Amino acid sequence: MPPAAELLTRLRGIFPADALATGEAERIAYSYDNSRRHALPDAVVFPTGHAQVEALVQACREYRLPVVARGRGSNTTGATVPVEGGVVVSFERMNRILRIDPDNRLAVVEPGVLNGDLQKALAPHGFFWPPDPSSAPWCSVGGNLACNSAGPRAVKYGTPRENTLGLRAVAGSGEGFRCGTYTSKGATGYDLTRLLIGSEGTLALITEATLKLTPKPSAIRTVRATYRDVGAAARAVARIMAQPVTPCALEFIDDVALKLAHAHGGDSVPLAGAMLMIEVDGEPATLDGAVEAVSAAARGDGLEQLSIARSAEETLALWSARKALSPAQRTISPNKINEDVVVPVSHLPALVDGIKQLSARHDVLIVSFGHAGNGNLHVNLLPRDEAERERAHACLADLFALVIALDGTLSGEHGIGLVKREFMPLALSPNALGLMRNVKNAFDPDGILNPGKLLP
Amino acid sequence: MPPAAELLTRLRGIFPADALATGEAERIAYSYDNSRRHALPDAVVFPTGHAQVEALVQACREYRLPVVARGRGSNTTGATVPVEGGVVVSFERMNRILRIDPDNRLAVVEPGVLNGDLQKALAPHGFFWPPDPSSAPWCSVGGNLACNSAGPRAVKYGTPRENTLGLRAVAGSGEGFRCGTYTSKGATGYDLTRLLIGSEGTLALITEATLKLTPKPSAIRTVRATYRDVGAAARAVARIMAQPVTPCALEFIDDVALKLAHAHGGDSVPLAGAMLMIEVDGEPATLDGAVEAVSAAARGDGLEQLSIARSAEETLALWSARKALSPAQRTISPNKINEDVVVPVSHLPALVDGIKQLSARHDVLIVSFGHAGNGNLHVNLLPRDEAERERAHACLADLFALVIALDGTLSGEHGIGLVKREFMPLALSPNALGLMRNVKNAFDPDGILNPGKLLP
Ligand SMILES: Cc1cc2nc3c(=O)[nH]c(=O)nc-3n(C[C@H](O)[C@H](O)[C@H](O)COP(=O)(O)OP(=O)(O)OC[C@H]3O[C@@H](n4cnc5c(N)ncnc54)[C@H](O)[C@@H]3O)c2cc1C
Ligand SMILES: Cc1cc2nc3c(=O)[nH]c(=O)nc-3n(C[C@H](O)[C@H](O)[C@H](O)COP(=O)(O)OP(=O)(O)OC[C@H]3O[C@@H](n4cnc5c(N)ncnc54)[C@H](O)[C@@H]3O)c2cc1C
Repeated sequence: MPPAAELLTRLRGIFPADALATGEAERIAYSYDNSRRHALPDAVVFPTGHAQVEALVQACREYRLPVVARGRGSNTTGATVPVEGGVVVSFERMNRILRIDPDNRLAVVEPGVLNGDLQKALAPHGFFWPPDPSSAPWCSVGGNLACNSAGPRAVKYGTPRENTLGLRAVAGSGEGFRCGTYTSKGATGYDLTRLLIGSEGTLALITEATLKLTPKPSAIRTVRATYRDVGAAARAVARIMAQPVTPCALEFIDDVALKLAHAHGGDSVPLAGAMLMIEVDGEPATLDGAVEAVSAAARGDGLEQLSIARSAEETLALWSARKALSPAQRTISPNKINEDVVVPVSHLPALVDGIKQLSARHDVLIVSFGHAGNGNLHVNLLPRDEAERERAHACLADLFALVIALDGTLSGEHGIGLVKREFMPLALSPNALGLMRNVKNAFDPDGILNPGKLLP
Repeated sequence: MPPAAELLTRLRGIFPADALATGEAERIAYSYDNSRRHALPDAVVFPTGHAQVEALVQACREYRLPVVARGRGSNTTGATVPVEGGVVVSFERMNRILRIDPDNRLAVVEPGVLNGDLQKALAPHGFFWPPDPSSAPWCSVGGNLACNSAGPRAVKYGTPRENTLGLRAVAGSGEGFRCGTYTSKGATGYDLTRLLIGSEGTLALITEATLKLTPKPSAIRTVRATYRDVGAAARAVARIMAQPVTPCALEFIDDVALKLAHAHGGDSVPLAGAMLMIEVDGEPATLDGAVEAVSAAARGDGLEQLSIARSAEETLALWSARKALSPAQRTISPNKINEDVVVPVSHLPALVDGIKQLSARHDVLIVSFGHAGNGNLHVNLLPRDEAERERAHACLADLFALVIALDGTLSGEHGIGLVKREFMPLALSPNALGLMRNVKNAFDPDGILNPGKLLP
């Protein structure tokens, strides 16, 4: 159902002609995301300021029309697909860095700033913003906040929840507000800031964010370790995280992934039962000690080879397998099911063993790799035809059950969106889900913000 | 109004005789906290498990009787005073450390565990939990979480919001639930964990907490710097925080506080315009460099003396002024008004100048000291008689206005409680307060949890 003519008139009063699109081409362009799901919105708008977003939500609320926030659509869960139509709000033109304030270790940005652009702007000041999804060059800070997206550095530096001071936003009620602080700590009322982080555009649209910055470490060193099998590598991860030197990256790559990457990336990619990439950063004087500490923990039953990069080129060579992975997977399955489950690190060995068994039992190719230092694995099911796709779905349910049994949870950093919400009752009790529904009503009484996402 | 006889019968069914007190002596003992406000509860209960807390809240909800959570009553804002009567729930018997899991860098505790006891239990494992209020030996983890309490270490290691993975709790609706994870990251639904942290017992009663642990740094070094005046010291704080080596403590003490401490603590306390205590921690090999970096930043216009402790005894001597402070203040005013405002660190110079002016204008003695690295100052107004008490109240309103004008907020770590809630509209817009009220309703539809606190 297209928006009522009156509503369109309202929207035309809020947005200039070039910031409101209702043509089919534009609607198609904003109908899908990296989940490959799609659904046509009724209109797409491109706000350039907070007041427009407030006016928009107020108008849509009157007409009970869905409002779907969109950064760059790089999420993998269908979180930006307008499954019930309505207005897609693309924040791509609200992409200004409003203030970089090194003295207070903060930056104030509009939500459409690309993560990569922000990092580039911060570098000359000697700071960075820790969340570092591999999609950094083409994903927005607003998307990062709404998904609590992270990357390799989270193991040492945390996720958006640990690296955001305050927000400006518009709730589903149409009310604009600020929450949080410009200070590095605060105890003034409820923490609405963290509540919005990870809420996937279902509570409020973020129009400004005050981000906490971290000084850039002055040096970094890379270690690569290969193992006889995934279990040996997973046990090494648990040992590395149990000693005091916290790596700034601790990435795991399984045998299937290495084979794929080898086929795609050539001999610089080792063939082994599993591989870890370990990085430590800090003051140069500490790095020999840090490398020694993580290497000692990495050694143990099943270690095959441990290499320490001595130069930038060697570092790049060590990372080649990890980099070759994404393109390699695409060659196998266009219907990749991309999960990012997380378990306590000491349960990683049980998780990787369990995944091997599930792969065999359901006869589905599974590639696992990811941020092992957080216990966060990207478990990619690669069905090659319709029959495998059905088996993959059954396998997925078993995978989630395994993860929950291991004290883990459904998502480490990709969020729930459309594709995982049916599994939410596995992770959360009816009472917890009921409270989340109440919170949703508290912000969005008519349920117009991103309907059909996150909550089952 | 005493609880209905039927309700008492219900409570007797939930709690054994020695865990339910209705005698006047016990009710008086739980009527006050460190705010020196008081109000009698109708009953005091001492749960030993989650199920009792659920049954209690359900019963009290039926009778619309207030339920006030209490750790050790050390808060300074009247947050545990049962201003509308009802049942005080003292968590002092739920004080078990359920699990210390160094491999996953977490501990699972009951809320009544004392912060100091937890730290002692963690030390042999080489870990600590960063929140470190100076009340650590006599305040509970539940209270720390409910207030987002911190201390000197927060500048480097964060507050409870950055150091808690998950909670078990009972909402005001009487529903028990778990939220958060046992993993170091997660993106599965709304962040109820952080929402409860800092909510001062107004949303839910915390019955279990999964805390994130940090490896204990292997060494620490202390530097003391004295300055001509508070402005010079505040500018040094801003310089220290603008360079990359983050101290693990950066405490400020003003001239009035030094004079008090000197009178009380003797000649080991320096007399100066202001003083900074600076600590750095980490691997021993890095500490010379770290001390050099913070000392270089500490130097500058107005520095009088900079001393670096060479031994444990020297460290203790350097801290003597800070330690003498609390007892010293008590000798002056039994009606100390204890604030803990916070501003961005670059605005500290303006804050300390403004405080001097307010002290002169309102003719009220003000002592300022605190966690300057977070921009968090304990601003203590010390009225000596009734007339001064009235002037102090006017001064307080001006202080908060100044703090807000400097982009700061009302509380850094003590929370709002009873005594600051009238000032909340200074810090938060009507829309933000409205959303907080909605959130309150989402958890506690009948408003039975800690009524009269936090929200105006
Ligand atoms: C190749 C590739 C690699 C990736 N690697 C990683 C990785 O390493 N780690 C990781 O965590 N993720 C990764 N992702 C997933 C994705 O990039 C992240 O989820 C990213 O944060 C999404 O940002 P976006 O701007 O594209 O947001 P979108 O996909 O447009 O939106 C994501 C969610 O955020 C909401 N949203 C967007 N903007 C706002 C706003 N202003 N206010 C409120 N809600 C808003 C949307 O409604 C939606 O729910 C990867 C994706 C790809 C394609
Ligand atoms: C000498 C002294 C020094 C201090 N120094 C500091 C300092 O450096 N930094 C700092 O931040 N604070 C400090 N404080 C304040 C105080 O110690 C902290 O606020 C502390 O966290 C309170 O803990 P408590 O166990 O005493 O909680 P209480 O005072 O009993 O309760 C505080 C709040 O928490 C709620 N609460 C308690 N338990 C639960 C639970 N299980 N579930 C839900 N809500 C609960 C209560 O309802 C109340 O709202 C100091 C206090 C004193 C007396």
